[in-house]
Amino acid sequence: MAKALNQLGALEAVKRLQRRELTAEQMARACLARIEQREPTVQAWAALDPAQVIAQARALDSAGVQGILHGLPLGVKDVFDTQDFPTRYGSGLYSTHQADADAAVVALCREAGAFVLGKTVTTEFATYQPGPTRNPRNTAYTPGGSSSGSAAAVADDMVPLAIGTQTAGSLIRPAAYCGIVGYKPTFGRVPRAGMKTLSENLDTIGGLARSVDDVALLASVLMGDARLRELQDAERPRVGMLRTFQWRHALPETRNAYEEAARLLSRAGAQVEEVALPSEDCSLVQLHADVMAFEAAQALAFERTRCRAQLSTRLLAILDAGAAIRAEDHQERLARAGAARGRALQWFDRYDVILAPSATGEAPFFDQGTGDPLFCRVWTLFGFPAVHLPFAQGPQGLPVGLQAVGAPHADHSLLAMARWMHRILQQQT
Amino acid sequence: MAKALNQLGALEAVKRLQRRELTAEQMARACLARIEQREPTVQAWAALDPAQVIAQARALDSAGVQGILHGLPLGVKDVFDTQDFPTRYGSGLYSTHQADADAAVVALCREAGAFVLGKTVTTEFATYQPGPTRNPRNTAYTPGGSSSGSAAAVADDMVPLAIGTQTAGSLIRPAAYCGIVGYKPTFGRVPRAGMKTLSENLDTIGGLARSVDDVALLASVLMGDARLRELQDAERPRVGMLRTFQWRHALPETRNAYEEAARLLSRAGAQVEEVALPSEDCSLVQLHADVMAFEAAQALAFERTRCRAQLSTRLLAILDAGAAIRAEDHQERLARAGAARGRALQWFDRYDVILAPSATGEAPFFDQGTGDPLFCRVWTLFGFPAVHLPFAQGPQGLPVGLQAVGAPHADHSLLAMARWMHRILQQQT
Repeated sequence: MAKALNQLGALEAVKRLQRRELTAEQMARACLARIEQREPTVQAWAALDPAQVIAQARALDSAGVQGILHGLPLGVKDVFDTQDFPTRYGSGLYSTHQADADAAVVALCREAGAFVLGKTVTTEFATYQPGPTRNPRNTAYTPGGSSSGSAAAVADDMVPLAIGTQTAGSLIRPAAYCGIVGYKPTFGRVPRAGMKTLSENLDTIGGLARSVDDVALLASVLMGDARLRELQDAERPRVGMLRTFQWRHALPETRNAYEEAARLLSRAGAQVEEVALPSEDCSLVQLHADVMAFEAAQALAFERTRCRAQLSTRLLAILDAGAAIRAEDHQERLARAGAARGRALQWFDRYDVILAPSATGEAPFFDQGTGDPLFCRVWTLFGFPAVHLPFAQGPQGLPVGLQAVGAPHADHSLLAMARWMHRILQQQT
Repeated sequence: MAKALNQLGALEAVKRLQRRELTAEQMARACLARIEQREPTVQAWAALDPAQVIAQARALDSAGVQGILHGLPLGVKDVFDTQDFPTRYGSGLYSTHQADADAAVVALCREAGAFVLGKTVTTEFATYQPGPTRNPRNTAYTPGGSSSGSAAAVADDMVPLAIGTQTAGSLIRPAAYCGIVGYKPTFGRVPRAGMKTLSENLDTIGGLARSVDDVALLASVLMGDARLRELQDAERPRVGMLRTFQWRHALPETRNAYEEAARLLSRAGAQVEEVALPSEDCSLVQLHADVMAFEAAQALAFERTRCRAQLSTRLLAILDAGAAIRAEDHQERLARAGAARGRALQWFDRYDVILAPSATGEAPFFDQGTGDPLFCRVWTLFGFPAVHLPFAQGPQGLPVGLQAVGAPHADHSLLAMARWMHRILQQQT
């Protein structure tokens, strides 16, 4: 049976859109129909406007084919300004906020021919206080956060592509919990103009999709990098398997996925080796949390000082703790992070790619929060690119996978290796 | 004769404000009176609201002493969102823009007890198209840009402190042309939330004041660094004098200032030495311009793609050129910049501080634009902290000085050395 239009991957859809075998309006209607059916359960969207979306799709259909995302619907995390939709940052404080302009990434996607299907639910200012979104695989569970709506909408075939952000683990973790591909580019390569800032040195914009090809297509626009449009497999890389110092938190399903990946990749001809950890944990997970708290207290200074009553208790506690950190301690942490990053770079002399856990295991129950980003914090701190590859299941039947981590600025080669690895790993299932 | 209130330095004023020998309302009225007298000539302000400012000052007077900037008026470059004043980014495109929240730096200054006196003129989106502001030393000349209004207002005693930004030379150059102290902190240390982005990897927020002490006081709030509040002289540093590869563009007044600085600092006991340049210019000035163009085309993607008719021809040309740069070339440039930065770091094994030209010479005529940032581009690219020290005059009687450049994250020690050097250099006049 042919796939329904809303189930089409972005690359597949865009080829048909460009050949005019498919219209943007058809894509929009298929996605809106899926949303109409499923949104009461999944609650992935913070703002939708079907009439306006249909009008935009029609305008694209009547214009010439304009770009490499021509006619594709896009979910946009509600931390990005949009000229048409409201932008609320997951906070009641901004319930009436309407931006005058599109965030840079939104404008770039529109320039490439995409249209915004709607704004997706974010946790409060992309931190921890959950929104209403449920895990579409099983609504008793969290979709993860903070890019909750973007991950859930893509996983539930409501939209082929969505933009998200990661400051701790907000792309990789929801991708893992929802069983899709999540990609966090090298820090500093995607423009953040028009994004609500949480942490100056950590916030990273990335994409969510149902395949490596699709997330690379989106990234080619976000990064302005044409090389990502025609991804080829990079076969049999040298893979460093890295348990990390957080391994004791890995649940059996993550341990199984880790062993299975090593076996499958090795069998397929990759050179697979366990990465030796330094003899001592230098506490980078806590260091990341402290850097984030200091910078969040700065970035959200207006909200922290002027609108305290409208912030969640949990966020306020983090911001107040961050405001109490001394600049000299923050500076010393940045220096320690830089030194640790320098040592980690040496792994890439020996390995083409690092494979590591994305999350402790399956998604936690919905009422337990959005899950722990502990397996993502260090990669965000280092600014290394990472891509989550789903390929296994846990005891509740929920998705499990691993993240592939590349050397900074080697995004193209990371995605090419991820493409090959994902194919190999999926053969198992 | 005692100084008029509007001529008081920030540190001096804040001491009297904290002792309640002076009220915020008196400060506000003194500054507003100066503005009323001079603004028709200088045109430093993009938005003023005297009644609201007086009300804010009174509110501060009736509350307890709250912070280290208690009762101080502040000029804010019009690229920062403010909840009360309009924010227009120096562009007609945003003539009706009103932000919902304060930018992080504005909120931090307000938290510390300062009040915003008004928004200061910026060039178009902090690039090159000038605003109306004149050099207050001689209105036939430019105040420099892009922090034109912030520099002119401080130099003309309209306000003791102002916030600005630098992406190429937009703090150091206007400070030099207006004869005040301009300070660009280490990249990544001041939160940019709520600032209109021009370039992800270059935009740096800093301060303008009439003394090193005052700019350090402001920076202590911007960076959350209490050490900067009680600056002491760091005497007799090892000074590396650096002509840079742009030396052929230095006008006689800059060459004289450079020689004079070497003589004065040496006589005062500093260890002064000429820094040997590498044998070849690796074209970092052009590299910076290319990185900035690529990133500006991304950051201003909405304006570039949707509002072209409302941008200046000059800005549009830069953005279109930037949009045509390939990501792989941008990436290669970032890598080259990183390598050059690594080599430059080694200077700080040998020298405590680098002293280099801030601008070619005196301010150009008003109708010739805002001057060339060529002596600042590399320091912005490297993210090293820099402070402009005014101490000499050129043939037109306009101010001239040099910039002191420190190792990254050594902002405190840079400002302490700058404090001593400024005292020594000013003894000449």
